Amino acid sequence: MKFELHTTDPSGARAGTITTDHGTIQTPIFMPVGTVGSVKAVTQEQLRQDVKAQIILGNTYHLYLRPGMDVLREAGGLHKFNGWERPILTDSGGYQVFSLAANRKIKEEGVVFQSHIDGSRHLFTPENVMDIQRTIGADIIMAFDECPPYPSEYKYAKRSMELTHRWLDRCIRRLGETEPVYGHAQTLFPIVQGSTYKDLRKASAEAIASRNCDGNAIGGLSVGEPEAEMYDMCGLVTELLPKEKPRYLMGVGTPWNILQNIELGVDMFDCVMPTRNGRNGMLFTWQGVINIRNKKWATDFSPIDPQTPSFASQQYTRAYLRHLFVAGEFLALTLASIHNLAFYLDLVREAREQILQGTYGAWKSKMIPQLQTRL
Amino acid sequence: MKFELHTTDPSGARAGTITTDHGTIQTPIFMPVGTVGSVKAVTQEQLRQDVKAQIILGNTYHLYLRPGMDVLREAGGLHKFNGWERPILTDSGGYQVFSLAANRKIKEEGVVFQSHIDGSRHLFTPENVMDIQRTIGADIIMAFDECPPYPSEYKYAKRSMELTHRWLDRCIRRLGETEPVYGHAQTLFPIVQGSTYKDLRKASAEAIASRNCDGNAIGGLSVGEPEAEMYDMCGLVTELLPKEKPRYLMGVGTPWNILQNIELGVDMFDCVMPTRNGRNGMLFTWQGVINIRNKKWATDFSPIDPQTPSFASQQYTRAYLRHLFVAGEFLALTLASIHNLAFYLDLVREAREQILQGTYGAWKSKMIPQLQTRL
Repeated sequence: MKFELHTTDPSGARAGTITTDHGTIQTPIFMPVGTVGSVKAVTQEQLRQDVKAQIILGNTYHLYLRPGMDVLREAGGLHKFNGWERPILTDSGGYQVFSLAANRKIKEEGVVFQSHIDGSRHLFTPENVMDIQRTIGADIIMAFDECPPYPSEYKYAKRSMELTHRWLDRCIRRLGETEPVYGHAQTLFPIVQGSTYKDLRKASAEAIASRNCDGNAIGGLSVGEPEAEMYDMCGLVTELLPKEKPRYLMGVGTPWNILQNIELGVDMFDCVMPTRNGRNGMLFTWQGVINIRNKKWATDFSPIDPQTPSFASQQYTRAYLRHLFVAGEFLALTLASIHNLAFYLDLVREAREQILQGTYGAWKSKMIPQLQTRL
Repeated sequence: MKFELHTTDPSGARAGTITTDHGTIQTPIFMPVGTVGSVKAVTQEQLRQDVKAQIILGNTYHLYLRPGMDVLREAGGLHKFNGWERPILTDSGGYQVFSLAANRKIKEEGVVFQSHIDGSRHLFTPENVMDIQRTIGADIIMAFDECPPYPSEYKYAKRSMELTHRWLDRCIRRLGETEPVYGHAQTLFPIVQGSTYKDLRKASAEAIASRNCDGNAIGGLSVGEPEAEMYDMCGLVTELLPKEKPRYLMGVGTPWNILQNIELGVDMFDCVMPTRNGRNGMLFTWQGVINIRNKKWATDFSPIDPQTPSFASQQYTRAYLRHLFVAGEFLALTLASIHNLAFYLDLVREAREQILQGTYGAWKSKMIPQLQTRL
C-alpha cells in the first residue's frame, strides 16, 4: 500500500491517494460497511455505478462465523466470494466481540466468546485474528484491540490500552511470520485507544506511531461520548500520528462529524449510519435531514435529492420513496441505502475538491448547519 | 393498442407484437408483478437492464388502498409515480378482494369489503373500478370480475360467471363514457370465468368473445385445481377466443405451466412465483430447480445460472447467494428475484424464437423435464 499526501488545506484537512493492489482510493474517503460480505440491500453493481464506492468494509467477526473460513479460503478470499474487485478493509473483530458476542472473557491470551448466532464458543487471539484476516484477504487489515465502553474508569481504560498495545506487537509479529494467501499485499493498521483520557490518548498515539505501520486508526470514539469530546480526542491524536500515513477514524459518523474530523486531519471513515438509518427512513441530503416516513412527503414529487449524483437520488421521488416505506416494500430499503451512501461519497468527494482548492474551512463552516437542517 | 400476430407454430404456439402508447411487447411474454407499484426487492433500472421486462403489473386493490387515488392522480398516474415508462397492466382488484380483504359481501351492485391494512370499509363496483384504473393509468386494464374458489359447486360457478358477464357490460359502458386521464390509450381486457366446468368455460369464452374487446383474459385458473384441469380449461377457451386478439392467462405459473399454455395459444402471463419463491430461496434455472439454502451449494462457486443473461445470474455464485440467504441478508432477496425474473423473461424470449422457427413443440417437450429437474 502506498499513500500520497497531495495537499494539506490551511484548515488542516488533507487530500491524498491510497494505492492498493486492488486499485486506488481518493482521500478523504467514506467506506460503506459490508458486514457479512454484502452492503445491506445494495448490489455490488449499485455500489460501483451508483454509490461510486472506492473501498468497502467487511467484519471479521461476522465473516469468521458465516460463511466461515473454509468457504472463504475455497472461494479464493472475500474479493472473489462477493465479486467486489476494488479494495476491501476488514476490522479485527474486536469491536463486535464486545458489542455482539455473549459471555466474553478477556485474558492476556485473547478473548473467549460465544457466537450471537448459535452460542458456539470461540477464541480470538491477536495471532488467529491475523490468520483469519489473511484468509479473508482484505487489502487493509486491522490490529486486534479491545474497545472499552464509554464511559470507562481511568484505571480500566489504561489497562485496556496497554493490553491493546501488547496485542498489537503480537499482530505485527504474526504478520511478519506469514504470507498473504492470495498474492496481493495486505497492510496492517494499528488502532489508537485510550477512551476519553487525554494522557492515555497521547500515550497511545505515541505508542502506535512508534510501530511505524503504513497507516493508523483511531478507535474507541463515537461510542456514546459527547461530540465535543470526540473532536478533542481526535484532534489530539492526529497531532501525534505521522503526517505521511493515512489516518482512519473508525465508526464515524454523521455527515457533520465527518466534515469536522476531516478538518482534524482524518483521511478515512466508515459507519453503518447511512445504511442503518436509511433502512429506518432517515435520509441525509445536501439540503438537510429528511424523515421520509413523514406525511409531508406524500405528494412531494421532487427527486429524493437532486444534488446527489446517483440514479436512486435523482430518478425516484420523495413521494414514491415514502409510499414504499409506508407499504413496507423492500425497495424502500434499497433506494434509501443507495441514496444515503451516494450522498456520503459525494460529500467526501466535494470535501476533497475544497481541500485541493484550499477552501475547506469556510466551506465546512457553511455546510454543517445546512446538513443538520431538519427538512 | 394494436396486436400483430406474426406466426402460429404447428404446435399452436403464437408469436406476436403488442403495441401500446408506452412501447411494444413481444409475445409470448411474462409480466413481473409490481403489486403496490414496485416489483418486490427490484429497482426499475434492474427491471429494464437486467430482467429486461417489457411490461409490469400493478394491483388495483393495493394501489387503491396505498398510496391511494389522490396521490396517484397528483403524480400523473402510476408510470410517473414509480418511474416505469414502459407498458403497465393493472388487474381489476377482483382477485385481491376475494383473497385478501375481510368481510366481503358480493351484491349485484358490486363488492363491499374491509381493507386488510386498517379494516376500513370500501365498495368496488364495475364502474368505480374502471374509474380507479383510469386514475392509475395503466395501458391495459382488466374488467371487474368475481374469481370463484376451487373447487366451486356448479350452481355457484354458473351464477358467479353470469355476474362477471353482467359486470363486464357495465365496465364497457363506463369506459365508453369516460376518457383516459393522462392522454395515453387504455385497453380493456374482459375475463373468461366458469371454474372447471367445460360448458361454463365454453359459454363464458363465447360471451367474452362476443364483446369484441381488443384483448381477452382467462381467469380463475391456477387456483388449486390439478394442472391437467388447468390445461383442459385453457385449451378449450383459447379455441373459442378470437385468434387476432392477444390472450392473457392470469396468475400462471411455473416455467413448465407457461410452456404448456403457450402451446395452447396463450400470449401473456403473470405470476408472483418468480419473486415470491425467489425470496424463499427457490431458483428456477435452465438446468432445473435449485433450493439455494441447501448445504450442497455452500462451496459451489459456479454462477447462479450461466445460461440466463442477467448480471445477477452470471456475476454472483451459488455459494455467495446461499451465504446471503443463510445470513439473512436483504441482498439475497434482490439477487434471487432478479435471477428468477430474468430467467422467466429469457424463457419466453427463447419460446418466441422457437415459435418463429416453427420448432416450438419439440423444443417444449425437451425442455419441460429439464426445467422440472431438482438440482
